[in-house]
Amino acid sequence: MKTAERILLTSLSLFNQRGESNVSSVDIALELDISPGNLYYHFKGKEIIVAALFDLYAQKLNSILIAARNQSLNIAEFFCFLFLLLEKAHLFRFLLHNPVDLAVKYPSIAKQYKRLIKDQESGIRRVLLTLLEEQQLNLSDEQVPQVVELIGLVFMQAQNYYWLKGQDTGEDDYMYQCLSAILFSLQPYLLTQSEQFEYLQRAIEEHNLLSDTLLTKRTD
Amino acid sequence: MKTAERILLTSLSLFNQRGESNVSSVDIALELDISPGNLYYHFKGKEIIVAALFDLYAQKLNSILIAARNQSLNIAEFFCFLFLLLEKAHLFRFLLHNPVDLAVKYPSIAKQYKRLIKDQESGIRRVLLTLLEEQQLNLSDEQVPQVVELIGLVFMQAQNYYWLKGQDTGEDDYMYQCLSAILFSLQPYLLTQSEQFEYLQRAIEEHNLLSDTLLTKRTD
Repeated sequence: MKTAERILLTSLSLFNQRGESNVSSVDIALELDISPGNLYYHFKGKEIIVAALFDLYAQKLNSILIAARNQSLNIAEFFCFLFLLLEKAHLFRFLLHNPVDLAVKYPSIAKQYKRLIKDQESGIRRVLLTLLEEQQLNLSDEQVPQVVELIGLVFMQAQNYYWLKGQDTGEDDYMYQCLSAILFSLQPYLLTQSEQFEYLQRAIEEHNLLSDTLLTKRTD
Repeated sequence: MKTAERILLTSLSLFNQRGESNVSSVDIALELDISPGNLYYHFKGKEIIVAALFDLYAQKLNSILIAARNQSLNIAEFFCFLFLLLEKAHLFRFLLHNPVDLAVKYPSIAKQYKRLIKDQESGIRRVLLTLLEEQQLNLSDEQVPQVVELIGLVFMQAQNYYWLKGQDTGEDDYMYQCLSAILFSLQPYLLTQSEQFEYLQRAIEEHNLLSDTLLTKRTD
């Protein structure tokens, strides 16, 4: 692995463990057993590392959003799509832990958050509209932006809420809580067969969403 | 006004404007035109000031929760109750801006968050159960905790989401966005007359929830 790549991976791991503000460039160099000068040669300061990790997160998120575009998903697949987005958010969770702090400290990062939220919201909106077309879901024109915003909010901020409540968000269990909250909000608008809904509900309860069974159990 | 009280009010205003981490004890003393020694005489460090402000917030929140206890509210009054809670959160908004950061920096504050969320969730649950009893709302036993958690999440974290999106959360407009998100989630479960629902929806749209008209327009 190249040094630049190793620096990013190690920084990500330290930031997730201790929070970005509690990790210095020197800590990263020490952990990698390289000199601070060598670190500086690759990344001119911590802000550059954070921005590079943000870019990586945005890339991974966008590749999921692009893959889902123009596909006609059923409700179960829609939740798998949401799960994939959540997994990436979990991977880069330090970015969502103190987003306001990071955005205030690094103005370039503030712009990245704004763009990321915009991309995520428009990607989710696009998939929702497909679900409406395919008559999997019944939402009015005014309700679509409400759902989009609610999903965005749960995605970006639920982790912090659970953490403040005292849950361990280092584990990924909270992702299923997020999905469960979204399923609750969408449930009244679902037009899918109750069998499929119950299956989805059980898969979320059992933390077993991406199993092969679900993906093959298409009923449409 | 007593010095201790003036210190708290000035700190609150500075923390809300600039964020807690960007305000030092010296800044607070300077703003009040008192010596750092005098400040220290009243509050032994910034953590004590933050903890005192947190206590004030918790007191104000609890007095609303207690007032709502044992009352049979209709849906419109329930939303006024939520609005009052949001107003207090807005008043002490620095506490919700970087909660994770504050909780990590000050372990005593972490405990206060946990207790506050617990109190808020149980207060909201109690009012929701009254709405069920009064047949204003139709939720199953499993759905009640979902709604409670969703409201708590929106209350604690929506401000940050809107801020990251680029909205000005110094103004209190976002509170109506919060109410609108909660109304959207509850709408399918409302048993109230459609007239009352439309009235509530319009009041939220027009940012005019606590007007006398709404409180006198009881239909139950």
